[in-house]
Amino acid sequence: MTVELICVGTELLLGNIVNTNAAFLAEQCAALGLSCYYQTVVGDNPERLLQTVRTAFSRSDIILLSGGLGPTKDDLTKETVAEVFGAALLEDTASREMIAAYFQTRGKIPTENNWKQALVPEGGRAVANRNGTAPGIIMEKEGRHVILLPGPPDELKPMFTEEIAPYLRRLSGEVISSVTVKIAGIGESSAETKVADLMEKQGNPTLAPYAKLGEVHFRVTARAKTEAEAAALNAPLVEELKKRFGSFVYTTDETVTLEKTVADILQRRGLTMTVAESCTGGMLAARMVNVAGVSEVLKAGFITYANEAKSSLLGVKEETLRQFGAVSSQTAGEMAQGAARAAGADVAVAITGIAGPDGGTAKKPVGLVYISCYVCGEVNTQEYHFIGSRMKIREYAAVSALTQLRSMLVS
Amino acid sequence: MTVELICVGTELLLGNIVNTNAAFLAEQCAALGLSCYYQTVVGDNPERLLQTVRTAFSRSDIILLSGGLGPTKDDLTKETVAEVFGAALLEDTASREMIAAYFQTRGKIPTENNWKQALVPEGGRAVANRNGTAPGIIMEKEGRHVILLPGPPDELKPMFTEEIAPYLRRLSGEVISSVTVKIAGIGESSAETKVADLMEKQGNPTLAPYAKLGEVHFRVTARAKTEAEAAALNAPLVEELKKRFGSFVYTTDETVTLEKTVADILQRRGLTMTVAESCTGGMLAARMVNVAGVSEVLKAGFITYANEAKSSLLGVKEETLRQFGAVSSQTAGEMAQGAARAAGADVAVAITGIAGPDGGTAKKPVGLVYISCYVCGEVNTQEYHFIGSRMKIREYAAVSALTQLRSMLVS
Repeated sequence: MTVELICVGTELLLGNIVNTNAAFLAEQCAALGLSCYYQTVVGDNPERLLQTVRTAFSRSDIILLSGGLGPTKDDLTKETVAEVFGAALLEDTASREMIAAYFQTRGKIPTENNWKQALVPEGGRAVANRNGTAPGIIMEKEGRHVILLPGPPDELKPMFTEEIAPYLRRLSGEVISSVTVKIAGIGESSAETKVADLMEKQGNPTLAPYAKLGEVHFRVTARAKTEAEAAALNAPLVEELKKRFGSFVYTTDETVTLEKTVADILQRRGLTMTVAESCTGGMLAARMVNVAGVSEVLKAGFITYANEAKSSLLGVKEETLRQFGAVSSQTAGEMAQGAARAAGADVAVAITGIAGPDGGTAKKPVGLVYISCYVCGEVNTQEYHFIGSRMKIREYAAVSALTQLRSMLVS
Repeated sequence: MTVELICVGTELLLGNIVNTNAAFLAEQCAALGLSCYYQTVVGDNPERLLQTVRTAFSRSDIILLSGGLGPTKDDLTKETVAEVFGAALLEDTASREMIAAYFQTRGKIPTENNWKQALVPEGGRAVANRNGTAPGIIMEKEGRHVILLPGPPDELKPMFTEEIAPYLRRLSGEVISSVTVKIAGIGESSAETKVADLMEKQGNPTLAPYAKLGEVHFRVTARAKTEAEAAALNAPLVEELKKRFGSFVYTTDETVTLEKTVADILQRRGLTMTVAESCTGGMLAARMVNVAGVSEVLKAGFITYANEAKSSLLGVKEETLRQFGAVSSQTAGEMAQGAARAAGADVAVAITGIAGPDGGTAKKPVGLVYISCYVCGEVNTQEYHFIGSRMKIREYAAVSALTQLRSMLVS
């Protein structure tokens, strides 16, 4: 079945916000085995919206619309779809009650315009919105399925996951099952080259690459009559990917991040960790603290941006700083060992580098970063050369630190 | 003049990447005074791409296409546009030489398929790509202007800024001038309510809100015959916004961030700063280190995630932790004072809170955060209640810390 996305909202046309809804919905649809050929953004304009919906109706089985369900006069999606369907708008009692309750629990009085959100085109059904006032809508006509979702991502995402994805699964009559193979430590081009043949000849299952900063995720997706059959179709390709990428694969669990993987390894081994960050300025620690429950593993960390801080907080020798400089493998190694000592931790990761745009020299250019990992007495320091903006260099340094630490822990 | 965006790439339809190009181009076009009514995403499919370009040609003055200019067989944008124009593809010598040079400086040998990137539709002109292999293309026909841009954002953005924006400015025959009024410390709804009347009656200049996390930016844009006239049109509206928002306005310089503003204030006063972060885990320090040259101001910082770290590194009293808990205004105040002492800094910002999703109680729910600012002996602690995911709560805490510190420094 084909699906088409229509995102409604003038703020999207003005570039006021980035269209994260389209990426989310597109990825969800791909995971559901639906083929998406068009995404359109259109403004809060009745004629253009009508034209866009009609065009979608003429060429796609499923039409997902986001935005334009709110209480203001610019919110027109429901009215427009009702017009395309030739349906009247009727008040849905349950929706009206939910809107009333939403305002009551917040101690606020709804303005009159809020009640139009309880209107549903005749023949359609309302989908409860647990995180906002506007219910979603599902309508079917002439074999087409039209789904209206609220624009705010924090309302759209839960509604899609809880209500719409199950609905779409039932439509296809098939089961779609995915496994995501996540790798870190190999660049995107190299990773895709390693599996170019698999990508070329993919059928069922499909193989889709997702590039993240410092990581590549390969989603393997199969369609079959049952979950068990689909899983069986996925398995050989997943095994082939694990074989080709070896220990660069850090998880096949869609929900697990690189930092969670590292935190889990440390927790299983009863190890504590600290950080000593210079140019990353806290980015690495912040990634570790992304993990709920990391308090078992991370107790303290140090931002040592100035040379004096490297000495006073971590015990880096003045002689080392003088002879080799702040950005050197020697300094990185002393930072890691010093941090472990100062924090009383089993493991320490130190990062020192030149984030730019200034500060680079011929010998030590912008992007030069040393990362040192200390694990129970053993030290491993690596040199990196990152290319990009100040922000990019620091982000690459943080993910490379996680990758380097994991590699040292699992080897 | 109207502009339409077409983003080409199957990876966008699969949701593999978020369409940041569309947001960037849309915002740039708005700043140039161009009206954008449609954005479309289409895959690497010749027929659908052709249909999409033809549709755009029928309804918009300017068509911006991104993506599909690379060397692979999936890269079809140029061929498709040439077909719409009925133009042959001719090799552009300068482009071929630039592609050859690009590979040479990297010590790589280009594969055969790279040379097709040097082809330009007859009547079009190539636009140099300083950051990649594929040149951009500008073509004009029957009053329509078609611009092809490379897909990778790090290639598209500089090319647009350096080459395309000046071209578009000349097309309109007018000067467009913008001023961005950035405010922090007021929520988006409240901010827009404060200027609802101004938004309603906007003409020339226009007034567009941009919601960021913890901030709202209002872009004031005027069109006129000269820069001076446009600036004069903007000035009264900018003054009105500054009057209504008072000290919540932290800059009217488009390029200046909240963290840079804080760093600049500290630097001007010769003050140094440190941080003591618990739940934010380094996010605040990382924001300060976003600022190139922050080394004048930030020398050291502490991640004190565990209670013991709050005591051992910052001197927070065990009695305080026992009586009031880690998440309390008392602990936050001692963290700030202790950090200033430990780092020898004039200013310190401490954050302690419950990021969730676990750890909340009836008395101290998820989202409760205390932020304490110490400035040259004076301490100001505030209590916050954030709503959202673990990540959102921490991001809000970090931006609120910057806002609270700035507020204390300027008052």
